[in-house]
Amino acid sequence: MTLLRSWVVSANSAETPFPLNNLPCGVVSTATLAPRCAVAIGDQALDLCGAEAAGLLGTRGVFAAPGWNAHMASGHAAWAVLRARLTELLSEGSDRQAQLTPHLIPLTDARLHLPFDVTEYTDFYASRHHATNVGTMFRGAENALPPNWLHIPIGYNGRASSVVVSGTPVRRPWGQLKGPDDAAPRLAPSQRFDIELELGAVVGTPSDGPLTVAEAEANIFGYVLLNDWSARDIQAWEYQPLGPFQSKATATTISPWIVTAAALAPFRRPLPAREVPLLPHLASDAPLLYDIDLTVGLTPQGGTETVIARTNYDTMYYAAAQQLAHHASSGCPMRVGDLLGSGTISGPGQGARGSLLELSWGGKTPIQLTCGAERAFLDDGDTVVLRGDAWGQGVRIGFGACAGQLLPALPDPFGRDAASA
Amino acid sequence: MTLLRSWVVSANSAETPFPLNNLPCGVVSTATLAPRCAVAIGDQALDLCGAEAAGLLGTRGVFAAPGWNAHMASGHAAWAVLRARLTELLSEGSDRQAQLTPHLIPLTDARLHLPFDVTEYTDFYASRHHATNVGTMFRGAENALPPNWLHIPIGYNGRASSVVVSGTPVRRPWGQLKGPDDAAPRLAPSQRFDIELELGAVVGTPSDGPLTVAEAEANIFGYVLLNDWSARDIQAWEYQPLGPFQSKATATTISPWIVTAAALAPFRRPLPAREVPLLPHLASDAPLLYDIDLTVGLTPQGGTETVIARTNYDTMYYAAAQQLAHHASSGCPMRVGDLLGSGTISGPGQGARGSLLELSWGGKTPIQLTCGAERAFLDDGDTVVLRGDAWGQGVRIGFGACAGQLLPALPDPFGRDAASA
Repeated sequence: MTLLRSWVVSANSAETPFPLNNLPCGVVSTATLAPRCAVAIGDQALDLCGAEAAGLLGTRGVFAAPGWNAHMASGHAAWAVLRARLTELLSEGSDRQAQLTPHLIPLTDARLHLPFDVTEYTDFYASRHHATNVGTMFRGAENALPPNWLHIPIGYNGRASSVVVSGTPVRRPWGQLKGPDDAAPRLAPSQRFDIELELGAVVGTPSDGPLTVAEAEANIFGYVLLNDWSARDIQAWEYQPLGPFQSKATATTISPWIVTAAALAPFRRPLPAREVPLLPHLASDAPLLYDIDLTVGLTPQGGTETVIARTNYDTMYYAAAQQLAHHASSGCPMRVGDLLGSGTISGPGQGARGSLLELSWGGKTPIQLTCGAERAFLDDGDTVVLRGDAWGQGVRIGFGACAGQLLPALPDPFGRDAASA
Repeated sequence: MTLLRSWVVSANSAETPFPLNNLPCGVVSTATLAPRCAVAIGDQALDLCGAEAAGLLGTRGVFAAPGWNAHMASGHAAWAVLRARLTELLSEGSDRQAQLTPHLIPLTDARLHLPFDVTEYTDFYASRHHATNVGTMFRGAENALPPNWLHIPIGYNGRASSVVVSGTPVRRPWGQLKGPDDAAPRLAPSQRFDIELELGAVVGTPSDGPLTVAEAEANIFGYVLLNDWSARDIQAWEYQPLGPFQSKATATTISPWIVTAAALAPFRRPLPAREVPLLPHLASDAPLLYDIDLTVGLTPQGGTETVIARTNYDTMYYAAAQQLAHHASSGCPMRVGDLLGSGTISGPGQGARGSLLELSWGGKTPIQLTCGAERAFLDDGDTVVLRGDAWGQGVRIGFGACAGQLLPALPDPFGRDAASA
């Protein structure tokens, strides 16, 4: 993959996450412009609502609303047509530069919003290293993987209402906590609040019955970085027998730009060898993973950032297409804007673990930050930033940061009935 | 509670589920009218879209869309005003009879649709009898209730896209099945497809942080009957460690009318005594349950109906208001149109069990149908109907039927990749 050159000069740098090869899909607003669809190009965003109204895109009304759902719903052919059209319009030498320039917004002036309306949100558990780490902590090395793990991409339904865009602060939750030696649970702010480094797949094509893996892959419009904030102490007490619930409901942060499957196509990578063969609805020889470098940065309030984890999406055991195929296998209808979290992405090795639970081994061995502090789980005021990039020859396909700062818990939020009684 | 008399004569019968006291909220269409909001009154539906356009309701644009979300979003005061207004308009002696009559649609001519857009769907596990039955089957009588059960209304996120209105056929799903003695799972149609008798609470007021139980109760607009179809064999293999997923994703059927909390107010009933005290965010002395008689009817294809279960919502251990308060406790945003399933409602006694899993004790003791057949789980062609009624003095507050027929599984739905290769 080599750089496509643009008349937006900042897009031709080998460092920009947003070269013409990328064209990621976001929603931006400014002091004077209401939220609207845009693609990032270098240090600018191209306002598609304005460009469409000016007759430059060949579409009508698709970009009137501040979310990419309408474009996704217009189908595969429309995705390809728009990408080709934008590539042509923004290429070096395009004769439309003068017409497009008024629709460029400097990213430094732009506020970024959720790029799409999240219809429903599902989270998976599909990194072998992550599942092995967590399983070893809780059940011992011999029983680390649940019996179904090598056969099914284990998933559970999350809470779409809690998905927020990068930059949104996250409030430490209250919940029921019970240590193994406590006689009864107590109601208190979570003491073991954590992150999960994930990639989110965005469903762009609806379905109403089982899908093959190939069909599922074609239905994915693109990807975002995703941090599934997790209260480990709430989770430990609540999750049997029906799975995580309030421990995962406070917030899930996504990066502001959807990087399309088309932009990532040059970075496809094979699935790992299977320890046991997959059943037909999940088996595939296609290169369904991507070579995407991922990092997690942690910055204490007023401090400096430490990169606490480095891994790659190509270490996953199950890819998003297999997860979507499994999701639809019961006949479950899938809709435009459904978001599928990959599950925590941990690679081999201690520095490749995508959660503090694993990095501090259940809190037993806190990690050292470069500023001298240490962390088992998050402190109030900590900011966590996920970053992701695919690297070609002098071309970087970036996701933009997926950031959030942890705010302290509310003072007793359950005292109102008593107070008013 | 005594009957409020209406000029719609059929609404004055002690047998009608839809007297003036009820005014349940649905969406209807006819051969000539597109889907629209309506309330049921006797054997008629009052078209609120038409009545609003004629200036009879004192609202504007609230009933233009075919769903009750806009009315719910207009707030508690608007709920009370509309109910008072409709009660006045439809009362015996109203001077608006002539103006309203053109907006009545005979229910026999009406097709019923989902009464609201289901934003997200959550299902609970909150009947003590049900949890004890299921726990006894799987873990023995001594360990029947999980350790957290008496402290938390256990819940998990379900799949809103799979919620369908009464009358929609349900297709037997495929999935991964593995018996305890099988070496590996296989891909096959579910052999243990089941029902769950539930009541669904509809969130009418959004929230963006923790709620007290009193606040939660006030935020519930109304209730529907709910059948959470469940593939027990898929569930058994998939549900560890993160809970039910594809086993519950094929379909969830709801009744076509939302019976409002206002209509049910005369039937409030106390919570049971607690075996252990609840933490402050869940404790309440308010009568949060309702006296609603519930039945499950099963009709084999071409056969006659057997009522296989009779119970009452007042047997629950946790009420919907407690479930909603727990749901919001982590700061989880709740939105208009969120649907909260009560969990399977089983009463004491063998005939009061709300699932075939319990009625046939895990399939070991099939139940006898009046037509001579027996059932451990559902056969293709079976129709299941849930019914619910609250009974006053000569007044019946009914939900309308919550019905669905089971269609046979698709022939191999995963063969397309192979066929096209």
